[in-house]
Amino acid sequence: MNIAFIGLGNMGRPMVLNLLKAGCQVSVFDINTAAAEALKEDGAFVAGSMEECVKGAQTVMTMLPAGEHVRAVYLGDHQGGVGLLKMVEAGTFLIDSSTIDPASARLVAQQAHTLELEFVDAPVSGGVAGAQAGTLTFIVGGTDSGFKQAEEVLQHVGKNIFHAGKAGDGQMAKICNNLMLGILMSGTCEALSLGMDNGLDPKVLSDIMLQSSGRNWALELYNPCPGIMDKAPASNHYQPGFMSKLMLKDLGLGLEAATESQSPIPMGTLARNLYAFHNAEGNELRDFSSLFEFYRKPSK
Amino acid sequence: MNIAFIGLGNMGRPMVLNLLKAGCQVSVFDINTAAAEALKEDGAFVAGSMEECVKGAQTVMTMLPAGEHVRAVYLGDHQGGVGLLKMVEAGTFLIDSSTIDPASARLVAQQAHTLELEFVDAPVSGGVAGAQAGTLTFIVGGTDSGFKQAEEVLQHVGKNIFHAGKAGDGQMAKICNNLMLGILMSGTCEALSLGMDNGLDPKVLSDIMLQSSGRNWALELYNPCPGIMDKAPASNHYQPGFMSKLMLKDLGLGLEAATESQSPIPMGTLARNLYAFHNAEGNELRDFSSLFEFYRKPSK
Amino acid sequence: MNIAFIGLGNMGRPMVLNLLKAGCQVSVFDINTAAAEALKEDGAFVAGSMEECVKGAQTVMTMLPAGEHVRAVYLGDHQGGVGLLKMVEAGTFLIDSSTIDPASARLVAQQAHTLELEFVDAPVSGGVAGAQAGTLTFIVGGTDSGFKQAEEVLQHVGKNIFHAGKAGDGQMAKICNNLMLGILMSGTCEALSLGMDNGLDPKVLSDIMLQSSGRNWALELYNPCPGIMDKAPASNHYQPGFMSKLMLKDLGLGLEAATESQSPIPMGTLARNLYAFHNAEGNELRDFSSLFEFYRKPSK
Amino acid sequence: MNIAFIGLGNMGRPMVLNLLKAGCQVSVFDINTAAAEALKEDGAFVAGSMEECVKGAQTVMTMLPAGEHVRAVYLGDHQGGVGLLKMVEAGTFLIDSSTIDPASARLVAQQAHTLELEFVDAPVSGGVAGAQAGTLTFIVGGTDSGFKQAEEVLQHVGKNIFHAGKAGDGQMAKICNNLMLGILMSGTCEALSLGMDNGLDPKVLSDIMLQSSGRNWALELYNPCPGIMDKAPASNHYQPGFMSKLMLKDLGLGLEAATESQSPIPMGTLARNLYAFHNAEGNELRDFSSLFEFYRKPSK
Repeated sequence: MNIAFIGLGNMGRPMVLNLLKAGCQVSVFDINTAAAEALKEDGAFVAGSMEECVKGAQTVMTMLPAGEHVRAVYLGDHQGGVGLLKMVEAGTFLIDSSTIDPASARLVAQQAHTLELEFVDAPVSGGVAGAQAGTLTFIVGGTDSGFKQAEEVLQHVGKNIFHAGKAGDGQMAKICNNLMLGILMSGTCEALSLGMDNGLDPKVLSDIMLQSSGRNWALELYNPCPGIMDKAPASNHYQPGFMSKLMLKDLGLGLEAATESQSPIPMGTLARNLYAFHNAEGNELRDFSSLFEFYRKPSK
Repeated sequence: MNIAFIGLGNMGRPMVLNLLKAGCQVSVFDINTAAAEALKEDGAFVAGSMEECVKGAQTVMTMLPAGEHVRAVYLGDHQGGVGLLKMVEAGTFLIDSSTIDPASARLVAQQAHTLELEFVDAPVSGGVAGAQAGTLTFIVGGTDSGFKQAEEVLQHVGKNIFHAGKAGDGQMAKICNNLMLGILMSGTCEALSLGMDNGLDPKVLSDIMLQSSGRNWALELYNPCPGIMDKAPASNHYQPGFMSKLMLKDLGLGLEAATESQSPIPMGTLARNLYAFHNAEGNELRDFSSLFEFYRKPSK
Repeated sequence: MNIAFIGLGNMGRPMVLNLLKAGCQVSVFDINTAAAEALKEDGAFVAGSMEECVKGAQTVMTMLPAGEHVRAVYLGDHQGGVGLLKMVEAGTFLIDSSTIDPASARLVAQQAHTLELEFVDAPVSGGVAGAQAGTLTFIVGGTDSGFKQAEEVLQHVGKNIFHAGKAGDGQMAKICNNLMLGILMSGTCEALSLGMDNGLDPKVLSDIMLQSSGRNWALELYNPCPGIMDKAPASNHYQPGFMSKLMLKDLGLGLEAATESQSPIPMGTLARNLYAFHNAEGNELRDFSSLFEFYRKPSK
Repeated sequence: MNIAFIGLGNMGRPMVLNLLKAGCQVSVFDINTAAAEALKEDGAFVAGSMEECVKGAQTVMTMLPAGEHVRAVYLGDHQGGVGLLKMVEAGTFLIDSSTIDPASARLVAQQAHTLELEFVDAPVSGGVAGAQAGTLTFIVGGTDSGFKQAEEVLQHVGKNIFHAGKAGDGQMAKICNNLMLGILMSGTCEALSLGMDNGLDPKVLSDIMLQSSGRNWALELYNPCPGIMDKAPASNHYQPGFMSKLMLKDLGLGLEAATESQSPIPMGTLARNLYAFHNAEGNELRDFSSLFEFYRKPSK
């Protein structure tokens, strides 16, 4: 399989390595040329330009920071630059795994469709560790045939591959999930902290809630109170894991979507604001479970 | 085993039936005399007064609506009435299974201790269905020996019996769990609704979140969107289950505890306020997952 | 006029001094005997007991920390102590100026009424400075005749005297006002901070909002941003003024009232939670406008 | 004075009429040609295209629905359309009075500056009534000389003209003010409703708060409870006034700005969510003080 991969950051690089391991031919490009060069010894073909990178590729994958980058790469920029959609050959299959606003994903999909190109949005969860282990979860938005094509590629870099719906729905489903996650983490910090303020042992309380109606992902796999789970970031100085700044970014995408659709999301926006306060105290790069410390101030 | 049981409402009655089934001798009392009489044919001894009810009992269990009732029954009231603590014989073991404020539970425990009586608070979760099936969860606060004694009795009416800590901690742990539950339910309604407003299928979104970091008790066992889970109240006109007014009551106990301990609980108080709005629209007696409708107004 | 005054703290002491200045005969009592003795040289009669204090008084005023103290002083305590209501002579007029829960105020009023005594709740606003200057605002709950009697006394210690309604309504109206104040202060901190984060000058923004629809008491008289108003606590290291812990207490009374009446108060509870976070960082004794710093973390 | 005016909706039309009344020559354009034609009899010159409209104008004013329209009109659109900036003659002064996101305003200002054109953002408050009466408030962002030029024009259509700061700051200051307003209105509805739930008379409570620390613009000029102020929308079936959908829009701009600057705005986002719930019940076109009804459900 012949793949062009654009965007070689913390997530993109290990994904490329797994594609190479699976026997794919991978051509890579990044505006940070060092990031591209570093993959040479692993067997990637290092392209000198985006145009060269996508030439002859059956599939193009992108992994970029935000919606504006995805729009610029696929559609071209305001300065008259040409986008990917006009560079690739007929029949090329396009996968964007960036986490971005659904509107941008839908815009790119629509433009691709106009040019008779298949495009899916396929944001991931699982973080850098998941990318390295090849156990990422992909949430795919696109047509049925697009989803099938995506599965063939993504099986080499991930474990669970969901079909959320039509174009943009991959992004939207990830946004909903991460909104839920922000609520779960805030709520878990809060319930444990309320218990501790009233004399409960957080380990005992966690055990009780795990077997009761308070059970949730954060409590099961990611207890935010230090010393309860050995392998959780909380027990390792809140080393990420999933950084607080990424949680704030994802909750921000939730706000943006809700503003568009005029949906009420009081719980999600409150969680977002707790992270805004917390991050402003210098916690952007720490694991998102460090919100627990926002509830546990030293003077208490 | 010789048990006196006071408080024969929706929860108390099926608990008495299970104790009788297990071969216990049960003497019952309620200010609603009809509720007591109705248990006669099931083999309970119907006492004419609280004093008569507890006479000769090894264990006294109470199941009452709120802290004020528990204080009145155990300590006596303002009009000079005598409480249980001064009626029971030396060595009687006392279990209160009401859901009340921890301060009241601690006050009763302290007064009991002064009179050398063992008392535990043991609030339940599992609702009327759990009471009937004998599968209730009990969260016990009290000494180690108190907990052991409680287990011997409670095994006949429940399945999981947790020891949360010292006196009052059973109530406190239940409050924390139900605060978490209120957050889970509100958050789940919100995430599903945001997805639907943006074109996602709630069944597909639920499936994705269940296998991702948005997983939680409400999503697993109690999906609030009609038509996704056959047996959930959402698919049965939101017949309870667990009534919205009880969720509001429990979140109110959370507020009260947080006010005492000066703890911040923004997520829990927000969930509480959503229920206050929702219940005021006439939903007090419907299942608490009907909050989903608060997010899905007809004009949308 | 012959007045007995019980409760001689930061607020009670200056109120007594103003009553003496106005020519009233004042008999004082406090369980802190030093506080009472200190008023001797100002002309107060220092009573050795509550009973001695109220003997022969036409009016009894109380200024106590919380509802439990008011109940104990007027109604007697659990240990069989006798309350004020049974000590005073027929026809004595009773004023409680403490800030407490309306339920306690109503209970005392009801018991007073049973004994044919007139009682009003008359909480104050204006703080220690207002008490010293004799410019306090009183919000009175009670009958029309009670209100008239109250005015005659309170005119010596305050400037504005409002009749909020029946017994307990003085407390309730103060609670509503201070809930609003907590919302105004939080909102003003937030609007100024959002502007500053986006490059606006807080002085210019304040001027614009003062002449627009954002105008409010906090912005007019109590700007929370340092350097904008010379005399505001914000420009004087947030020296109180009105302490953050008192704002948290008053918002807590709001929560309690809303829990009783099952009212939704999302804005007020959110403000309460912001103060709970802020106070936990060691700001309890600072002016309540210091919440501005909660929005302006050093790392920004 | 020779003015070109683009955007002739509810606000634009009365502004044009006031400019004409003040003796200005006004050339008008709108894609809704009927709206333009209707101004012919009032003395406006009706242009057939944007290009014709701005030809020979000393000042161009625009009044458009949202940021995307402003960008399209000034900068041209994606389909290669040319924008205003490239149509106007050297030395033309540009004023945009739309309420839009500050980023769009800054982008247009920057592009204008590149072409050596003076541009200010000057959003208004005061609504349709203010536009008709010529008493609008303008909040201007731009250079000192830009502000002076703006004053000369805007004095004919408004009363208060503020200089908020540099380009985009007019929009930002309006956003902060309206965030504050959303908080004031929500808080006032809430405080009055809490009082009513507890037996207070809303008129009496309003009077007390107006003279206390709860005083704010909504309470002074716009009491949301029917029957208290004769001229307020609340006493006239909540006829706008200022529509709920516009409040939701403005609070949405606040969210967007806060997302950009990573600022916490919990109070403002909560108010926004209350409006999202309220509007979804069919209240978009009613006055924004109708939020009071969200707090006063019939079943109470």
